Amino acid sequence: MNFKEKQAFYIEIIENSLANSVTIDNQYYTILKEAMLYSLMAGGKRLRPTLALATAELFEKELREVVAFACAIEMIHTYSLIHDDLPAMDNDDFRRGKPTNHKMFGEAIAILAGDALLNLAYETMIKDAFAGNTIKKLRAMEVIAQYAGSLGMIGGQVIDLSCEGRKADSEQLKTMHKLKTGALIKAPVESAAIICEADENQLTALSNYAANLGLAFQIKDDILDVEGSMEEMGKKPGSDSLSDKSTYVTLYGMEKSKQMLEEVTKEGIAFLDQFGKSADFLRELAASMVTRKQ
Amino acid sequence: MNFKEKQAFYIEIIENSLANSVTIDNQYYTILKEAMLYSLMAGGKRLRPTLALATAELFEKELREVVAFACAIEMIHTYSLIHDDLPAMDNDDFRRGKPTNHKMFGEAIAILAGDALLNLAYETMIKDAFAGNTIKKLRAMEVIAQYAGSLGMIGGQVIDLSCEGRKADSEQLKTMHKLKTGALIKAPVESAAIICEADENQLTALSNYAANLGLAFQIKDDILDVEGSMEEMGKKPGSDSLSDKSTYVTLYGMEKSKQMLEEVTKEGIAFLDQFGKSADFLRELAASMVTRKQ
Repeated sequence: MNFKEKQAFYIEIIENSLANSVTIDNQYYTILKEAMLYSLMAGGKRLRPTLALATAELFEKELREVVAFACAIEMIHTYSLIHDDLPAMDNDDFRRGKPTNHKMFGEAIAILAGDALLNLAYETMIKDAFAGNTIKKLRAMEVIAQYAGSLGMIGGQVIDLSCEGRKADSEQLKTMHKLKTGALIKAPVESAAIICEADENQLTALSNYAANLGLAFQIKDDILDVEGSMEEMGKKPGSDSLSDKSTYVTLYGMEKSKQMLEEVTKEGIAFLDQFGKSADFLRELAASMVTRKQ
Repeated sequence: MNFKEKQAFYIEIIENSLANSVTIDNQYYTILKEAMLYSLMAGGKRLRPTLALATAELFEKELREVVAFACAIEMIHTYSLIHDDLPAMDNDDFRRGKPTNHKMFGEAIAILAGDALLNLAYETMIKDAFAGNTIKKLRAMEVIAQYAGSLGMIGGQVIDLSCEGRKADSEQLKTMHKLKTGALIKAPVESAAIICEADENQLTALSNYAANLGLAFQIKDDILDVEGSMEEMGKKPGSDSLSDKSTYVTLYGMEKSKQMLEEVTKEGIAFLDQFGKSADFLRELAASMVTRKQ
């Protein structure tokens, strides 16, 4: 299978599993199941769970060893998007071309659907831990919990809020992205590696790979934001229309940001050297960060 | 120690542990720690964690065996209150005489502080599971996750929302309370019993005790609501000022509700017969549901 085929293969496994993950059958609140699945099944590239499956393949493990944890991380990612979109947060009406969860189901249900998805992530991991390899899975759960919580993603969301309406310095921006985006990109790679019994050396290499991938992801987002806005508005680079918020582009300029993106990606791919050909998917995934158009 | 002393003793252990549970030390988002601790340390009777500690004493176990799980359940309870109080939900400005979390910190931080407390509950349990008795603790975590999630408390919150502005029938009301309040009262009793290696028979008895306690708690709340309102408004029983929402009192009347409260409590206490004197605290706790004034 080439990269695209492999990606589609992973996505199919993940979406089949996600589609069956919400088991509510109580007649009094089918709306909650609907709201949870609405956001959970809204598509996307499934970057995070894909990373978990691809990591398992490095260790020649069966994918089903890590599918539950991969899906749990996607549930955490999804709940964070639902809550991020709320009027009190980013106040977004659309996500991936569809109305946001609160636009469809109302704010109260959106809050609860988010809560329920976060809780379901843990229910899913705990249940899977009983299926075997229990201690490794508990360790993986610990890593995910830390990256998802106040020392990880949620911490990053709070820093992001505190940056609104003023310029952050580069240290604050770096910490914010490391936590807000980076943590939940490291989580699937590290947790899958732990479940697959990676040694310390392998775990460190994969963690570094994922850290670089997360950073590349963010720099590229900032570049696309500016390029997208310039196209829309017919403006030229250097316009400070977007500079009410710090980004890699506002801090370092477009040229330097593109250079950083290349370097960070190259460095990330180098961390995979010890894995040989089995890491080709992860290499191409990193390379695709540089070329992606959205 | 008499009942009151014992209760104060339990509360002290719990509050010491809760006060040290939030470990954020990142300078960029101290506000999150503040918001989490603001609600976590807001006092109250600590009914749920107290139940866990009292259950451990039935089995002559050290309290520290269950303290982490007791606190995790209190974190779950606290997050649910923060989210319940939000403008999109119950829109409450005060809780226990203090401004609600979003009134103090804004809605965005309140949403994230709630998310962070839910996540912290799992971080706390996972970490504690590594300290020993791992499989039993994982089993306890599974029970708590189920009672807290879409098949438990969150399900009950959604039914509650769907009941707004119309009268629920008695079956719906029962399901709503069983999930919204009952689940998180069963959680500490069952999880502590599991950690303390209760046998099936003991576990069933304690679960039944907790189910009755939860029901008594709710009936008493409904009774207090009506009595409080009557006092305030100088009205007589039978007034339908509160009848836009179904409660035990609107469905069964005040006399029958008080009778139900007595019966449910008596039945609950009877489930403790096999435990002898070591269950005296749990007996008095149940009896205090009938007499409490708030």
